Amino acid sequence: MADQNVVYTADQLHRFCTAALMAVGVPERDAAITADTMVQADLRGVSSHGVVRLPAYVKRLEAGVVNARPSVSVVRETVAAALVDGDNGLGQVVAYRAMELAIEKARQAGTGTVGVRGSNHSGASAYYAMMALPHDMIGIVYTSGAANIMAPWGGITPLLGNNPIAYAIPADKELPVVLDMACSVVARGRILVALKKGEKIPPTWALNKYGEPTTDPQEAHDGLVQPIGGYKGYGLALVVGVLSAVLTGGAFGRQVTDFYNDLVNPQNVGHLLQAVAIDAFMPADAFRRRMDEVIQEIKSSELARGVDRIYLPGEIEFLTHAERSRNGIPISLPIARELQALGERLRIEPLPG
Amino acid sequence: MADQNVVYTADQLHRFCTAALMAVGVPERDAAITADTMVQADLRGVSSHGVVRLPAYVKRLEAGVVNARPSVSVVRETVAAALVDGDNGLGQVVAYRAMELAIEKARQAGTGTVGVRGSNHSGASAYYAMMALPHDMIGIVYTSGAANIMAPWGGITPLLGNNPIAYAIPADKELPVVLDMACSVVARGRILVALKKGEKIPPTWALNKYGEPTTDPQEAHDGLVQPIGGYKGYGLALVVGVLSAVLTGGAFGRQVTDFYNDLVNPQNVGHLLQAVAIDAFMPADAFRRRMDEVIQEIKSSELARGVDRIYLPGEIEFLTHAERSRNGIPISLPIARELQALGERLRIEPLPG
Repeated sequence: MADQNVVYTADQLHRFCTAALMAVGVPERDAAITADTMVQADLRGVSSHGVVRLPAYVKRLEAGVVNARPSVSVVRETVAAALVDGDNGLGQVVAYRAMELAIEKARQAGTGTVGVRGSNHSGASAYYAMMALPHDMIGIVYTSGAANIMAPWGGITPLLGNNPIAYAIPADKELPVVLDMACSVVARGRILVALKKGEKIPPTWALNKYGEPTTDPQEAHDGLVQPIGGYKGYGLALVVGVLSAVLTGGAFGRQVTDFYNDLVNPQNVGHLLQAVAIDAFMPADAFRRRMDEVIQEIKSSELARGVDRIYLPGEIEFLTHAERSRNGIPISLPIARELQALGERLRIEPLPG
Repeated sequence: MADQNVVYTADQLHRFCTAALMAVGVPERDAAITADTMVQADLRGVSSHGVVRLPAYVKRLEAGVVNARPSVSVVRETVAAALVDGDNGLGQVVAYRAMELAIEKARQAGTGTVGVRGSNHSGASAYYAMMALPHDMIGIVYTSGAANIMAPWGGITPLLGNNPIAYAIPADKELPVVLDMACSVVARGRILVALKKGEKIPPTWALNKYGEPTTDPQEAHDGLVQPIGGYKGYGLALVVGVLSAVLTGGAFGRQVTDFYNDLVNPQNVGHLLQAVAIDAFMPADAFRRRMDEVIQEIKSSELARGVDRIYLPGEIEFLTHAERSRNGIPISLPIARELQALGERLRIEPLPG
């Protein structure tokens, strides 16, 4: 890496993020949850949902477009399902509480499905799906992306977010399987990188403003990202949007506001979180052993030419987590400087270095 | 179309399929359900899961590799979840009963999630997902494909089926949204068509036996189909396989046997079927009106160059269903002849014409 990085420990970043959020009115427990989602994302190498987002969260809280002290409440409830109103709180705080409720319901009923409205950008969905793992449950999270970047298939109006779907599945001696995928072929960030470097992009990544595949990153930037599998990814993004936002009363389509650019209108992000208790279907230890066999079988696949190993979904993130837990989290110099400046402005204990 | 077709009414095909299945020992009600799944698929234009499959189902029943008179039983149960053993019955019969149970549980608990093992090839998953619609519920169906056609990403050993996932979502005046998608870019059938016609295929469809993208249909035929979105579709196929087959005790990976070529070993197909009662989250009529708005908004998208309208997932199938309900179902001449021969052999009332 030619880029300069500053290396922090997870603890240092967690303390800093917690203090910054508390400085703008977030209660300590909620600040700590939100900080943990960011630091875990950085540990896992998912830096797009890491501490890079802290300045935007702080800005939104300061602007009052996110509620620092929400009354998260259950507004509708059955034995296995509930609808939660997030009261425009931080998405992390709202999604965390909703997943706790889904897990509690799954313990009672076999499964728990909790819809959420009135939430905000919640970071990496994998975090909430993985909350199910220590309970011998499978976690499933549908979220509407907090900005529209895709058009319906055949169209050019951005009416769909990348609407991620996340699954976390426990194993025994092997690592859990954790899939957290957007419905777009690549994140918009990768198009921006190509644009900065002046490189062409593959024709499968984006569409120009006429809805045609393009290899020009500027045209792509002015256009739309492509869904995976063409009409399939469009369909999946639509369904994820319906489950997370339409079923819950969240914002969909033209109601969706931009996370970075709109500091006036609350986002009303929706989620649908499911916890599935494994012992409703088979003894959890038998399932975990079956998962170990599945994982070993997948890894035993003959390799394609030029490939040196098979990874399970989430495996690279677990390996990165282990490495960064030992060696620290590299943060690029511009981001580190932005965090330092934020700390000074908020008069909190500075990041070391 | 240059191909010659014979046109039948839905009733004619339903009577014929029911009689054929009864002739090999299937009880009338089960035969009628199975016939309906095939005829509905043909009406919807999903001919790969239509009456073209009848000869193979009959052959498997005659060989005793599928149980004509299964005792479908609930082997594990909570208020919102159950595990069903299909006793190696026809997949259609087993999945139908399991979805009935999921709907019943959703009526009581808000959601119902039913896992199935000991099932068989069950045709189009959309059928079971759509069973939720008249109950103002959302249907979700995960199924393990009944043959391995994809490798783990980076590998070349076929360890994954195309593992379809289906969602059915009710609307009000608009048509329901029905997404039924495999995790492969295209069905293997389209590679076979290109092979027969001697045409090249796009490099995104398949991999050769070394795991490299290929435009040669023969290399593709001897290789693997590609998952949508590369590693994303691999991850999704894996997760669908785990939910439908590992969680339930169904066959996964090397345990999966081939629908057409193995007449000895039961398939032990697994499914996971979910019914989500809309009124657990919001009044059903309010949701249906919200869906109408969503659908109208999607259709209002500006069009890409060369496109004349936007379709919602499942819309083309509904339009085809309406057209074929009026004008009949075209069946290609070779398939019609195969069905006629099957009817003669089973000594049932022949198809007209």
